Amino acid sequence: MIPAPFLLYLGRSSDPLAIKTSRGVAQFRREDCVGEFRHDECPQTLGLPRLGMREAAEAGARTLILGIAGAGGRLGDDLIEDSAAALEAGMNVASGLHQRLRDQPRLATLARERSLNLFDVRDPPANLKVGTGYARAGRRLLTVGTDCSVGKMYATIALTRRLRESGAAADFRATGQTGILVAGGGVAVDAVVADFISGAIEQLAPARDDRGWDVIEGQGSLFHPSFAGVSLGLLHGAQPEALVICDEPGRSHMRGIPGRPLPDLAECIERNLEAARLTSPEVRAAGICLNTSAMDRQAALRLCAATEDRLGLPCTDPIAFGVERIVDKLLCHEPSSLSTFASR
Amino acid sequence: MIPAPFLLYLGRSSDPLAIKTSRGVAQFRREDCVGEFRHDECPQTLGLPRLGMREAAEAGARTLILGIAGAGGRLGDDLIEDSAAALEAGMNVASGLHQRLRDQPRLATLARERSLNLFDVRDPPANLKVGTGYARAGRRLLTVGTDCSVGKMYATIALTRRLRESGAAADFRATGQTGILVAGGGVAVDAVVADFISGAIEQLAPARDDRGWDVIEGQGSLFHPSFAGVSLGLLHGAQPEALVICDEPGRSHMRGIPGRPLPDLAECIERNLEAARLTSPEVRAAGICLNTSAMDRQAALRLCAATEDRLGLPCTDPIAFGVERIVDKLLCHEPSSLSTFASR
Repeated sequence: MIPAPFLLYLGRSSDPLAIKTSRGVAQFRREDCVGEFRHDECPQTLGLPRLGMREAAEAGARTLILGIAGAGGRLGDDLIEDSAAALEAGMNVASGLHQRLRDQPRLATLARERSLNLFDVRDPPANLKVGTGYARAGRRLLTVGTDCSVGKMYATIALTRRLRESGAAADFRATGQTGILVAGGGVAVDAVVADFISGAIEQLAPARDDRGWDVIEGQGSLFHPSFAGVSLGLLHGAQPEALVICDEPGRSHMRGIPGRPLPDLAECIERNLEAARLTSPEVRAAGICLNTSAMDRQAALRLCAATEDRLGLPCTDPIAFGVERIVDKLLCHEPSSLSTFASR
Repeated sequence: MIPAPFLLYLGRSSDPLAIKTSRGVAQFRREDCVGEFRHDECPQTLGLPRLGMREAAEAGARTLILGIAGAGGRLGDDLIEDSAAALEAGMNVASGLHQRLRDQPRLATLARERSLNLFDVRDPPANLKVGTGYARAGRRLLTVGTDCSVGKMYATIALTRRLRESGAAADFRATGQTGILVAGGGVAVDAVVADFISGAIEQLAPARDDRGWDVIEGQGSLFHPSFAGVSLGLLHGAQPEALVICDEPGRSHMRGIPGRPLPDLAECIERNLEAARLTSPEVRAAGICLNTSAMDRQAALRLCAATEDRLGLPCTDPIAFGVERIVDKLLCHEPSSLSTFASR
């Protein structure tokens, strides 16, 4: 386990989406965060005290969370420099980037000399197996999206919490760096070897017999030309009885791909259901979660209502308006018989 | 480059599909093969002289090709034992398994002591980037399949050769262990980190301006619950103007998944075209390749004719009947304008 409390890194990021890991940890584990670290040119804040490395260590921070993400997950010189400063101040460093902290000789040496730890949360579990698609017991919900970074993790956590408040057993199954830091476990599915995508998810959410829910965080989008393979393998491995579709209204283009429009929501739902039927023939759409944080409240309410009318599914912003109606409908639905499709 | 000539490993395999790498090398680089190594309980042969490790080395073999594949690509004790014997006899060892030869201390030590090499052909290239899906110049064909191991590599090589015989520039782009051993290069797409599937293929078949073809080997199947994510990322990265669909008639179930039927050929074509349109809006199906090696010739001819009538595409067995008609039709078709979809 990664020792709390944390110092959250913002670095020089000017793109709000690039700091989503730090923001997620601030949102869901705020009690474990003593401050944020940012350079002068960083216009962003999480509303935490701005601290230098030594100040943070003196304030009790035990780990710097390198909670920023660019496409490809590279660890640039500035991140290495700042990580070294954190180690020199006596903090561990945790990162969800593809490039591993431990592969940086300077950081590895500093950590060893000071008996500190480097946490690469994207490391996949050892001994993954390939998926099989065989029917397994349990109730599983997966969030899917029109794009990357549209709020799938927020929706997944909100759904898990609401299921528990409703008296159901429910576990958040994290599949990305932020979720793993929030949940304290999970598998970074985009970092596993490609042959094991669906198998990793079968292992993350194995058969369960307690009528409880595995609420699985989706990644990417079937419509994203960089990452659709990850999304499809995740969908097949999750074998979900229910999908919740996530979208950010008004986004001009697919994340990182200027010029490429987002898919229509109805088409996104249909294509995800079609693909999911390979391992979950009775899969259904259970609701829509919109990230309306850039809209005013009345416009957001109107959009949710209009989307609900158009697509015939409960539609909400999970942060602004909660997910009660999606969860109520979920809990009314009896799981389909597992005997209706091939099992081992 | 891996030094020829080769000794091809069959081990104890009784499953014809498990030795497909050794068989592929025997088929397409026969002049480089001095023999095959198999234990007494192995009922299979490639028609090469059966040699022990020392005999093979004395006959001039420079590399043992560990050309067998199980799901997950594990390197069992018997393979380590036999690889050690090959090194002790003075041969290098090449493997396409997920588990790496160099991670086996016994093999690493033996190789170092004897100045021999261990070749892990599944190692992905360094510094892969994530894919973008931006339109790029060049003519690309991708083979896709109803299942794993239905003859995609054979079809791809046959199509490449026929394109060249027809006077076109054409390059076989290998994406699996066997293809890489045959071609002498390529990328094992199932072994790259999941985030980089489509990016690896964009790098394998980059833009080209010579009106020549990149003929890209497909992997897995959109309908295989273990590997569909790999297949989808490959499809998006390939950005193909043409698909050739491969199938093995009469197969009882999806490779490695007893109880799961193969998809209908028409549905397989439609779903691949639908998915491919994300990065190649004008993609078309160019033909069907059937592996009819288990059928008699007249029945195979009748099946090809019936499939052609039913689906309206040239249909052939690439080994038994050649791919002339698919290639003739390909070469008659002018490439669509690249300006019809988003480019950088």
